[in-house]
Amino acid sequence: MADINSPLEIGVTTGPIRGSKKIHVGDLRVAMREIALEPSSGEPPVRVYDTSGPYTDPDALIDIQAGLPQLRREWQLARGDVEEYDARAIKPEDNGQLGPDRSGGVPAFPDVVKRPLRAKAGSNISQMHYAKRGIITPEMEYVATRENLGRAMRDEYIRDGEDFGAEIPDYVTPEFVRDEVARGRAIIPSNVNHPECEPMAIGRNFLVKINANIGNSAVASDVAQEVEKMVWSIRWGGDTVMDLSTGRNIHDTREWIIRNSPVPIGTVPIYQALEKTGGVAEDLTWEIFRDTLVEQAEQGVDYFTIHAGVRLAYVPLAAKRVTGIVSRGGSIMAKWCLSHHKESFLYEHFDEITEICKAYDIAYSLGDGLRPGSVADANDEAQFAELYTLGELTKKAWEQDVQVMIEGPGHVPMHKIKENMDKQLEACGEAPFYTLGPLVTDIAPGYDHITSGIGAAMIGWFGTAMLCYVTPKEHLGLPDRDDVKTGVVTYRLAAHAADLAKGHPAAKLRDDALSRARFEFRWRDQFHLSLDPDTAEQYHDQTLPAEGAKTAHFCSMCGPKFCSMQISQEVREFAAKQNQDSDGFIAAGDAEAGMEEMSEKYRDGGDLYVKAEE
Amino acid sequence: MADINSPLEIGVTTGPIRGSKKIHVGDLRVAMREIALEPSSGEPPVRVYDTSGPYTDPDALIDIQAGLPQLRREWQLARGDVEEYDARAIKPEDNGQLGPDRSGGVPAFPDVVKRPLRAKAGSNISQMHYAKRGIITPEMEYVATRENLGRAMRDEYIRDGEDFGAEIPDYVTPEFVRDEVARGRAIIPSNVNHPECEPMAIGRNFLVKINANIGNSAVASDVAQEVEKMVWSIRWGGDTVMDLSTGRNIHDTREWIIRNSPVPIGTVPIYQALEKTGGVAEDLTWEIFRDTLVEQAEQGVDYFTIHAGVRLAYVPLAAKRVTGIVSRGGSIMAKWCLSHHKESFLYEHFDEITEICKAYDIAYSLGDGLRPGSVADANDEAQFAELYTLGELTKKAWEQDVQVMIEGPGHVPMHKIKENMDKQLEACGEAPFYTLGPLVTDIAPGYDHITSGIGAAMIGWFGTAMLCYVTPKEHLGLPDRDDVKTGVVTYRLAAHAADLAKGHPAAKLRDDALSRARFEFRWRDQFHLSLDPDTAEQYHDQTLPAEGAKTAHFCSMCGPKFCSMQISQEVREFAAKQNQDSDGFIAAGDAEAGMEEMSEKYRDGGDLYVKAEE
Repeated sequence: MADINSPLEIGVTTGPIRGSKKIHVGDLRVAMREIALEPSSGEPPVRVYDTSGPYTDPDALIDIQAGLPQLRREWQLARGDVEEYDARAIKPEDNGQLGPDRSGGVPAFPDVVKRPLRAKAGSNISQMHYAKRGIITPEMEYVATRENLGRAMRDEYIRDGEDFGAEIPDYVTPEFVRDEVARGRAIIPSNVNHPECEPMAIGRNFLVKINANIGNSAVASDVAQEVEKMVWSIRWGGDTVMDLSTGRNIHDTREWIIRNSPVPIGTVPIYQALEKTGGVAEDLTWEIFRDTLVEQAEQGVDYFTIHAGVRLAYVPLAAKRVTGIVSRGGSIMAKWCLSHHKESFLYEHFDEITEICKAYDIAYSLGDGLRPGSVADANDEAQFAELYTLGELTKKAWEQDVQVMIEGPGHVPMHKIKENMDKQLEACGEAPFYTLGPLVTDIAPGYDHITSGIGAAMIGWFGTAMLCYVTPKEHLGLPDRDDVKTGVVTYRLAAHAADLAKGHPAAKLRDDALSRARFEFRWRDQFHLSLDPDTAEQYHDQTLPAEGAKTAHFCSMCGPKFCSMQISQEVREFAAKQNQDSDGFIAAGDAEAGMEEMSEKYRDGGDLYVKAEE
Repeated sequence: MADINSPLEIGVTTGPIRGSKKIHVGDLRVAMREIALEPSSGEPPVRVYDTSGPYTDPDALIDIQAGLPQLRREWQLARGDVEEYDARAIKPEDNGQLGPDRSGGVPAFPDVVKRPLRAKAGSNISQMHYAKRGIITPEMEYVATRENLGRAMRDEYIRDGEDFGAEIPDYVTPEFVRDEVARGRAIIPSNVNHPECEPMAIGRNFLVKINANIGNSAVASDVAQEVEKMVWSIRWGGDTVMDLSTGRNIHDTREWIIRNSPVPIGTVPIYQALEKTGGVAEDLTWEIFRDTLVEQAEQGVDYFTIHAGVRLAYVPLAAKRVTGIVSRGGSIMAKWCLSHHKESFLYEHFDEITEICKAYDIAYSLGDGLRPGSVADANDEAQFAELYTLGELTKKAWEQDVQVMIEGPGHVPMHKIKENMDKQLEACGEAPFYTLGPLVTDIAPGYDHITSGIGAAMIGWFGTAMLCYVTPKEHLGLPDRDDVKTGVVTYRLAAHAADLAKGHPAAKLRDDALSRARFEFRWRDQFHLSLDPDTAEQYHDQTLPAEGAKTAHFCSMCGPKFCSMQISQEVREFAAKQNQDSDGFIAAGDAEAGMEEMSEKYRDGGDLYVKAEE
């Protein structure tokens, strides 16, 4: 953990990702990461999408007690449709301090915002509202530049992919972003009270995004860990972070996270609402829930998971299942519905929730409370009944121009994955799909980042816009730092595999650059172009630690004599020497002579090889 | 590493896999693993496929200096078509001892076989030969029992899957196995000189298998590590093991491995042949290669990777690629073809190789020397040109009743995977496909067990019969013990995901048993039913180490108050108490009263909860 320029006692991870530097592109200073290649490559630097915020910028002064700069504040104020007002007063129960014991408190964030923003009466400040009126916001412009990854610089791109009906453009314009947001096919989560957030889009026609969950729990964690978990998650590629904290100090912990987060923060407000009832689902009321929404809206939460599709009538469908209801929010609402024998208050008060979302530009993440928790329960009646209700609610939200995405499963065997995507597109009018995995088998606890990474790559290919990560500890325990990184990198590779298969114009550049580096034994370029340069270099060094091995024309797998890449390069050089095309080359009469020369060179070794560690 | 009943200095891992016991089924004593569940479950034990051999049997005496019992020897002799003969004399170059320095030798295996078996003149001892003549061998019977996993015991199975034209039976009979082998759709690798091998089938209509590669290299390793790597690989689920050793002591190391291996052993004979020329590809000859085949045949190698499809005319096609030729065997042959400007001696002498295979029942694994080494090169002209040649060679091998499987890529983005399977089925007459991954992106070195596990699960679903594992060290270094285990378990889960998606009748039993255990908080059953019970339990214990937590009705993810599974069970109990069906339940008037009772119970906690570790 390198703490650069950080004057704090509570340190967070800062410093550039190995082999890359932060750059800022255009008037809006869109953050990207640029990976310079070895001069011998003769290749330009490779630009990659960067979620890490100022933490990887050596020129940024990081002070988590002050929070990040307010990138979006001027844009918001320039629109003239917001007002400051006195924030709701913080209550002890916001931090779970209900009983006489109020120990273990987290310090409040210094200079906490007392006068948050919201839409002026009669205004709607959602990005969808602007988009529908034909307004291209700076947020949309930022997204357009960000998504292109500098691909205007190159023009050799040939479209190659199967996109299952997506409409990915060759080049993303601000107008394209606007149109996608207007149609509800993409969202830009951007609570007006989270001006620190770097705009990003979630939609089928953009790069596939991933979410990382963080959160304390009843059993472990503290605030310093939570802020660092967020920083750590985005360092490795988390596009959004969900704070799923329960227990005490939720409010204050969330404030620290949001003030320091350059990515959208999502929550499941019912978790906090339940804390306020001492954990008794039956005691939940619309009033408690509504108050919690406002509390979180004022702090700057960018999207809310709302399980409004768990209707009373669907609960018994889930009772028949092998694993019942596995969504926490879903089970809380199921219990409420049953105990009161009433329709869900989330469903009943949906339009009122939408009013709140509209006033702050909070996006809906309509929760799949009835997602399957085992392959046995995949694609069942309960799941699809809820999905169609989410489709109905999507249209209601869109009537008020509120942005929506839809959460999806869960546990689904491979042959049932596509049906999920197809039904979601149809039921929800192409609103972005946001899935958890899905896990393609239940028998590998300890490896569920992989069982779910398989499903995630596939459903991402089919059209899912954001993939919620799963760590190796899923089903077993709380993820530690290494687990979070493993989960994030696994999902980054799954998302990238999906982008490649969809034929996204920006995706393959990086694969090709890395493959060329591999073929040319540019080991450092190979490491730097990796999703996780630290691990790549460390693994290499475990077998061949010598500095010279970084420039060796072989690796430890085959050793110097057997290197297929080396032999293959000799073949290519030989072909080039003949200065003939493939067909002519075959017919070349002096092949033996040329090859003999190559062969001598090969036998000598000479400067091609360094001494291996035996 | 638990060494039970092992009198050796060189220890190998023995002892049962946590929570399961070895059983032997039927007259042939087919080895399986049985996982007993907690009595509270009321469920029968779950039988799972077992590749681990006697090493996990506490009743077996393991002595790697003596080798394993010769399970198949009586069956072989009973057929009356084999003869003993004097083995080829071992030469210094068999162990790579060409120069004056002969240090570092591995001790020869004690009591090495001096009189190996082969088919009598005019005989053909391949399983395919018997199958085509209508003979059901004990090997086929063994396979049938092994594949069923005791599923005759259960009859609630409903077929659910998409098999893309596979013909997986509800129940595997010996006659079905015979027919599949006769048609070339499955192979049972079974060199007559490897009688220690437990018969297993590789074919699209059987459970998907995985291969683990082991091997020393020019840079590291020794023989004790190699034997243990084999034992370790099969402990976690390797169905076959390929010995890819290069450098010194190859012959002796291989002898130790084969004598102690209950799974088929594959090799790439060109690696050893090249050692005999001091690493100079141009100096390879058919005579050296042929002698190497006989050497390995007498030791008991069960399948040979033969890169006979790398024809002279295809080499220039590969020279155009981003990553050229990445198969070691392929590059060696390409170099040979170019330097001599001649057609491959493997292609030219193919029928003679087949004669050797026939005399020992060695299966072909026709190598894909031109497989793509990057997503940029996937599905290109070079790759498919070779594939069609492999199809031509398959038919030539089948004319002599020699068993064949076909190796496949490599690096392939998701949208191009299915084309590989479809073309292979068509070109190679449904001979089993055996693929390396494929990796679905190139940008995640350090995580290529996952990038390839995604492709492996998919191509396994589409019809690939065996998946060659990739470890986290792929492209970077030599795998250590942990890497091998990670690679094997990753591929086991990918293969299982494929079985599930194909609708294999035996696959889902284990998922469902584990999911029920999860829902009922039977933590130990959850661990024991996992592919890796040790890791599952260890991960659980990192957060909740107390013994009581193993029986707790919650876990560390949500803590006691938020457990969706717990709430869901309460919902189910409530529904049951009402003694009504779903529809009636909804209409129940006294729901509140019943729920109030549940609610009291929930508030009390009582014996439902244990104290969590705070």
